[in-house]
Amino acid sequence: MSKIRAGILAATGSVGQRFVEHLIDHPLFEITALTGSPRTAGKPYGDGVNWLLEGDVPEEVAQMIVQPTEPNLDVDVIFSALPTAEARELEPKFAEAGYPVLTNASPFRMDPLVPLLIPEVNPEHSQLIPHQQEQYGRKGFIVANANCSSTSIVLPLKILQEAYGLEATIVTTMQAISGAGYPGVPSLDILGNVVPHIGGEDGKLQSEPIKMCGTYVDGKIEPAPFKCSAQANRVPVVDGHLASISVKLGRRVTIEEVAELFNNWYPAQDILDLPSSPEKVLIYRPEDNRPQPIKDKDAGNGLAWTVGRIRECPVFDIRFMAITHNTLRGAASGSVLNAELLVKQGFIKAA
Amino acid sequence: MSKIRAGILAATGSVGQRFVEHLIDHPLFEITALTGSPRTAGKPYGDGVNWLLEGDVPEEVAQMIVQPTEPNLDVDVIFSALPTAEARELEPKFAEAGYPVLTNASPFRMDPLVPLLIPEVNPEHSQLIPHQQEQYGRKGFIVANANCSSTSIVLPLKILQEAYGLEATIVTTMQAISGAGYPGVPSLDILGNVVPHIGGEDGKLQSEPIKMCGTYVDGKIEPAPFKCSAQANRVPVVDGHLASISVKLGRRVTIEEVAELFNNWYPAQDILDLPSSPEKVLIYRPEDNRPQPIKDKDAGNGLAWTVGRIRECPVFDIRFMAITHNTLRGAASGSVLNAELLVKQGFIKAA
Amino acid sequence: MSKIRAGILAATGSVGQRFVEHLIDHPLFEITALTGSPRTAGKPYGDGVNWLLEGDVPEEVAQMIVQPTEPNLDVDVIFSALPTAEARELEPKFAEAGYPVLTNASPFRMDPLVPLLIPEVNPEHSQLIPHQQEQYGRKGFIVANANCSSTSIVLPLKILQEAYGLEATIVTTMQAISGAGYPGVPSLDILGNVVPHIGGEDGKLQSEPIKMCGTYVDGKIEPAPFKCSAQANRVPVVDGHLASISVKLGRRVTIEEVAELFNNWYPAQDILDLPSSPEKVLIYRPEDNRPQPIKDKDAGNGLAWTVGRIRECPVFDIRFMAITHNTLRGAASGSVLNAELLVKQGFIKAA
Amino acid sequence: MSKIRAGILAATGSVGQRFVEHLIDHPLFEITALTGSPRTAGKPYGDGVNWLLEGDVPEEVAQMIVQPTEPNLDVDVIFSALPTAEARELEPKFAEAGYPVLTNASPFRMDPLVPLLIPEVNPEHSQLIPHQQEQYGRKGFIVANANCSSTSIVLPLKILQEAYGLEATIVTTMQAISGAGYPGVPSLDILGNVVPHIGGEDGKLQSEPIKMCGTYVDGKIEPAPFKCSAQANRVPVVDGHLASISVKLGRRVTIEEVAELFNNWYPAQDILDLPSSPEKVLIYRPEDNRPQPIKDKDAGNGLAWTVGRIRECPVFDIRFMAITHNTLRGAASGSVLNAELLVKQGFIKAA
Repeated sequence: MSKIRAGILAATGSVGQRFVEHLIDHPLFEITALTGSPRTAGKPYGDGVNWLLEGDVPEEVAQMIVQPTEPNLDVDVIFSALPTAEARELEPKFAEAGYPVLTNASPFRMDPLVPLLIPEVNPEHSQLIPHQQEQYGRKGFIVANANCSSTSIVLPLKILQEAYGLEATIVTTMQAISGAGYPGVPSLDILGNVVPHIGGEDGKLQSEPIKMCGTYVDGKIEPAPFKCSAQANRVPVVDGHLASISVKLGRRVTIEEVAELFNNWYPAQDILDLPSSPEKVLIYRPEDNRPQPIKDKDAGNGLAWTVGRIRECPVFDIRFMAITHNTLRGAASGSVLNAELLVKQGFIKAA
Repeated sequence: MSKIRAGILAATGSVGQRFVEHLIDHPLFEITALTGSPRTAGKPYGDGVNWLLEGDVPEEVAQMIVQPTEPNLDVDVIFSALPTAEARELEPKFAEAGYPVLTNASPFRMDPLVPLLIPEVNPEHSQLIPHQQEQYGRKGFIVANANCSSTSIVLPLKILQEAYGLEATIVTTMQAISGAGYPGVPSLDILGNVVPHIGGEDGKLQSEPIKMCGTYVDGKIEPAPFKCSAQANRVPVVDGHLASISVKLGRRVTIEEVAELFNNWYPAQDILDLPSSPEKVLIYRPEDNRPQPIKDKDAGNGLAWTVGRIRECPVFDIRFMAITHNTLRGAASGSVLNAELLVKQGFIKAA
Repeated sequence: MSKIRAGILAATGSVGQRFVEHLIDHPLFEITALTGSPRTAGKPYGDGVNWLLEGDVPEEVAQMIVQPTEPNLDVDVIFSALPTAEARELEPKFAEAGYPVLTNASPFRMDPLVPLLIPEVNPEHSQLIPHQQEQYGRKGFIVANANCSSTSIVLPLKILQEAYGLEATIVTTMQAISGAGYPGVPSLDILGNVVPHIGGEDGKLQSEPIKMCGTYVDGKIEPAPFKCSAQANRVPVVDGHLASISVKLGRRVTIEEVAELFNNWYPAQDILDLPSSPEKVLIYRPEDNRPQPIKDKDAGNGLAWTVGRIRECPVFDIRFMAITHNTLRGAASGSVLNAELLVKQGFIKAA
Repeated sequence: MSKIRAGILAATGSVGQRFVEHLIDHPLFEITALTGSPRTAGKPYGDGVNWLLEGDVPEEVAQMIVQPTEPNLDVDVIFSALPTAEARELEPKFAEAGYPVLTNASPFRMDPLVPLLIPEVNPEHSQLIPHQQEQYGRKGFIVANANCSSTSIVLPLKILQEAYGLEATIVTTMQAISGAGYPGVPSLDILGNVVPHIGGEDGKLQSEPIKMCGTYVDGKIEPAPFKCSAQANRVPVVDGHLASISVKLGRRVTIEEVAELFNNWYPAQDILDLPSSPEKVLIYRPEDNRPQPIKDKDAGNGLAWTVGRIRECPVFDIRFMAITHNTLRGAASGSVLNAELLVKQGFIKAA
């Protein structure tokens, strides 16, 4: 079977580069278009990009000519790494032109007709797609993945919600500098420092998990019935968003119960079978000093969640720490996994 | 009036050096004895110490001979920077021998007869001293200052408790490497990383504020009636413990009310008059990215609290961030301020 | 005597802020004008500036209205923190309009009629000023201070040159991020990394010391007769440029001789008497692990040089390390000290 | 063919872990013994080790019982990660007992009968082995690999020496914290700092390259006829030793010549054919800001050299920068590559 042709919007940026990295040698997709700003459009990708990842620009794309970001690409699916303002303007145009758009950007995440999708959390939310197409008069559609910090916390929350009921959560994150892209955070701001503010992030952390843990009913997502409070902080870490989480559950549990729940949790088999899925999606570390960014960010090729430090919370029920890799699971690789799910569900096809 | 003669136990360690730094040129105290381990005892202080602070060993003490840590020092007050195990063994001996002991160590902090003292929080807890002397048969006494992370959170909590009532707090800290002393945290563990564990710190954060915010009644401290949950994290920051705090209050408040409460708060005048007291003990920063360790740790010569990012908490009532300098307010300078209070209260005198 | 009225060009940038910091409470100068870009001009300085230094914007200037950078300021002397391109265009206009211009910028450093001045190195180079005024038809003049990395190495080189003769030097620097201004170096480039390139810096390091160590003869500077090779590197350090230096001298010396030379060196008394001069301009550290940025950058209020690790060089004669504070001695404070010298020499006067 | 049985001495330390990592799934060797200190001996490796590398202890060795470091192991070759003092005492005993000992430790590096071996630099130095065996009365032998910082500079120096002649080199290194092992460098010493001293390292840098670039003649190594001056610095980088190098060559060359020389250089084919050899041993980067630790340390699976910033040296002939991964090429992987060479040369065999 021939591969599904993929285009990457804003392929020269830091998230765009992660898309390139992930889609090289992908079993389902092949990169057939890369777009960039007027500054880079028309140049070979290898010349236009300031490659931030290890090694060199992959040979497969180094000579590919960067195209303008216009909805006339010869592809079957779009991966968008567009910045917020451009995403708001351009992604609907791609959707109207018939493309499935898998986006990392934030503008449409809370749109009631756009699935905010993580295969292990809410694969059934893709049922919004035909409603989105019908109500917005689109041949294509937009599917968003969550903010990288929301991603870190949502799978453990969903698992707790399903097992015990979840009433409230209070979260503090410690987030990596790569989450701000490039050039991103000035070194004078963050070397030896913590900045207790990331624009808009607290709000995303407080709203996205509630949508993602919600229930699909008749073309709508009913929000999950828990409250979420969050404070996002930037720390001098390169990759990996770490979260400190307290949860008020629907019933009393022991920390052993929760450890066992996390340790033995697996998504449905058809999710585990997705090409990019790690074998172990959720890793429980019993050591008293884990998870840590430098040791746990790359678990499952950067697609696994790692949790640890499960303890009693003197105020709520349970405290724990969770981490994911912010530019892999929390961005590009998360979108690719979403696309793999949508292929399996029949929403994306080769032309 | 002649100065009060002060001895510093474990004067060569990182907290001991901060004591030296603070007591040089102090209006009430003069350093007349420095003690150290067998390795350094007998040497001039300037030779025995691996000076970690800026500049050189102060001339006033460079030639002072380091003495063994035994309760026969020619001093009126003891500042103890002893490590935990030695503090547990030696500090009671100094108290029995008649010395007032101002300690940074943890063993006696939760002793019901030992004041866990911060002048701006609970100056009246020094009333425990005669009870301690009587029940333990000591001529001297021990007064402890709080753990450096507890210190960061306790003053804002106390102010909220007094103003509105406080029912519960959930805290996550981001703590500096200097809190672990020297050599302390290996660089391979913390460079570009966060370690979600500091031995014993979660427990201290959960218990000490409740004692400090408690009420002195008839020779005892009745614990404050709020619950406290905490997670301590080590971050690659040199100085300054930052805390993310959510509070459930006794009544509904607006964020403006809380900002104004913090902004206009002052301790009693006799506390403000202590020689080391900063003019502004609690600094409220309205900027959306403050407080930060590198910008706010040194406020008030390292003795002020800085708070900011006051926001509504979707789960409780209010969230905010707070910081203090961990080796100044949270350690040596905090002890010196305690001693200044005890001089004013008459518990410490020149011989 | 009334103070000399000083204006700061580009006062809102990182070097401009250092000028403000140094000139507050200066015994000779008072700030009477601050200029900024069109974005900040017209606003109170406290509103237009993103204050990067510790503490808050000094009260004395917080309400001062930022002016456009035009040569109509009501001042007696100009301190310029302009970026390169603007400096090239605007500084000559200020000089033509009659202002003495003390500049941090690079465009005129190698101009044969512009003194590249460090009071302790080449105070007699100010004799170029009347020649500059005559040949360029200026009522005012431009005096430059050296690049921050050149500054680190030039005083020790000059002292060696005078004592023993200097034939060649090979230098590798490790430079702080504050040298790049704000936002400057992206954190993703430098956290846990070294970047072996700073645009144009190698060339400045290789040429400026030769001019500064040169001889004033009849309206010209004859370059010093040594060769200089340099490699500049950026390291994850906030402040302080450290240099590793090998020198080929005019005669054989022992390391003890050099240590004694450095340890006992003082500038002429009239230089030592300048208001900002540190008591000890050159500090020799005998420890085997000094100088270090965090311990030595602030020596002499950031105006001293610190040298150490003097050793035999198996190829040349001597190796050693040197450091200065790049935004103080190497930038703003260095300019202020130059101005103090020029006041003493009569080139700058109150109106 | 059955694999050669390998034992790792001090397998629980940081270099020992790198040996484990490299020898898992090695085509020639299989780990059959791991030794450790009395604290860990007798325990399963997975319990005794504080695993510092990414991921978990490899399953293949997690249950292997750690043995005491005594010369009675059931192996054909020894990889030693012993610390200096123990290496000095124990490695000769292993050599006497008949084992080939590949060591990372320093005590025997400058022994005139011990090859200081890097396959790409001096494979013929293994001819010392029979002389070592004869003169020391050993059935086995010791082969050392170079200090991690010497390793970074020696291959480029050797290539220049062969091509143009080499008269002198002046070097300044910027070395990673992993070079000091674990716990190694205290974070308070290095976070945001540079330490211009690594015990003994300057001397190793100044002597080892001269031995390695020397000529084997009749059972002896005649030292290379160039002089070497070096200053080692510790920087806050996790892995990768970067060196700034100036060289005085035997004849004038252009920078293009040198770039081409480096770019087209390959070792002999039999060295390239060693199982661990990277395809490209020496990588020339033409960008003006390379090599950098975070981008270039892992080139060639951590076994390649990367060079760049080739420029004219105003004092000597050429300047450039070079980097290798200090715990891979500069330690464990370098030893394994040495062992692969010795297998090919017949000095190591399966029993």
